[in-house]
Amino acid sequence: MENHNHQELIQKLLNCVAACENCALACLHERDIQMMAQCISLDRDCADICAQAARLLQRDSVIAHQYLLLCEEICRLCADECSKHDQDHCQQCAEACRICADACHEHHEPITQR
Amino acid sequence: MENHNHQELIQKLLNCVAACENCALACLHERDIQMMAQCISLDRDCADICAQAARLLQRDSVIAHQYLLLCEEICRLCADECSKHDQDHCQQCAEACRICADACHEHHEPITQR
Amino acid sequence: MENHNHQELIQKLLNCVAACENCALACLHERDIQMMAQCISLDRDCADICAQAARLLQRDSVIAHQYLLLCEEICRLCADECSKHDQDHCQQCAEACRICADACHEHHEPITQR
Amino acid sequence: MENHNHQELIQKLLNCVAACENCALACLHERDIQMMAQCISLDRDCADICAQAARLLQRDSVIAHQYLLLCEEICRLCADECSKHDQDHCQQCAEACRICADACHEHHEPITQR
Repeated sequence: MENHNHQELIQKLLNCVAACENCALACLHERDIQMMAQCISLDRDCADICAQAARLLQRDSVIAHQYLLLCEEICRLCADECSKHDQDHCQQCAEACRICADACHEHHEPITQR
Repeated sequence: MENHNHQELIQKLLNCVAACENCALACLHERDIQMMAQCISLDRDCADICAQAARLLQRDSVIAHQYLLLCEEICRLCADECSKHDQDHCQQCAEACRICADACHEHHEPITQR
Repeated sequence: MENHNHQELIQKLLNCVAACENCALACLHERDIQMMAQCISLDRDCADICAQAARLLQRDSVIAHQYLLLCEEICRLCADECSKHDQDHCQQCAEACRICADACHEHHEPITQR
Repeated sequence: MENHNHQELIQKLLNCVAACENCALACLHERDIQMMAQCISLDRDCADICAQAARLLQRDSVIAHQYLLLCEEICRLCADECSKHDQDHCQQCAEACRICADACHEHHEPITQR
């Protein structure tokens, strides 16, 4: 089955979900949350979209590889924002997002434009 | 807030989710499910992706309009498959998917390619 | 089909999702986000759980009515927190959560304990 | 952080999601899908609910441990159905569901009834 070839990619997506959830949770406990507002928003979008991407790959969806193009984009946006902050949870999240973005980049397909 | 401008689009996305869930459920009760396997798969992907799109619009996500490009694509794929079947639930689902795809088409943005 | 009987409940669940997303978004733009941290967390959990409840009802899931028990609980927790804050988005969210909790209460079933 | 204590539980939830997605996909390709209709439905509910449970634990949600009660129930229902079928994907899914249900059982809290 197709999804057996994607174990590594799926694992990177799930690692990214975990890192984003951890980062959003930690951001909400920071003293200066204001500075973290954009980070919290992007963490959430990135976690939701990576989690959905993993599910689509697991069920061998016809849209899975096009979905990865979008997944790469949100991972890069989230990595860019997180890398601006010195906190460990942000730096770890930025790294997980970059690894995931690169993996998505290798496997994505262009989205059919009609 | 941005999301106030998108009430109509969000409603079409949620209508599409409901039509896809209804169609998948009805397909599982058809006598010849075999013929419906592809329909069930696409219904599920389409419902998941449209539901996520509505959430992204509601929270004014930076990725929302790029997400709509993908959402349009799965709606067209699901509409194409459903329109092959004569059952009411398939015909209604095809119609909801087409309406949703057209609405996504009006609001989507190209996905940044890096 | 079962889900036809649940249109009103499903609508209240979806209204609650929209109110929670709107509230979380607005909280992230408040000057004193710190005070809103718990609200943002509960909004998110409540939106996710109500959205899932709507999907389970739409697909006539065997677990749907047990799920409503949990859904009621998160709606009450979110309403309690939101009602502490004077902002319109919090007051509106508290109201949507209470309406949704009451609707879940009418339809839920006890969870089988084994 | 709380979620660090739950790595093993989260892994069992994610294994269950993967097994359910794999089983649903394989069921849709079986010659006698009719017999598999209930299995496909339960696989889907179980995957959705376990995935949500993992997210709630990762973000240290106040509702996470109550959610596990419901998660245990859908895992037991899915395990019961899958164990009726001889196919490898069903047997593997039943096993993953049982392991996950037992893990949920250890960590769940009763749902507050108001």
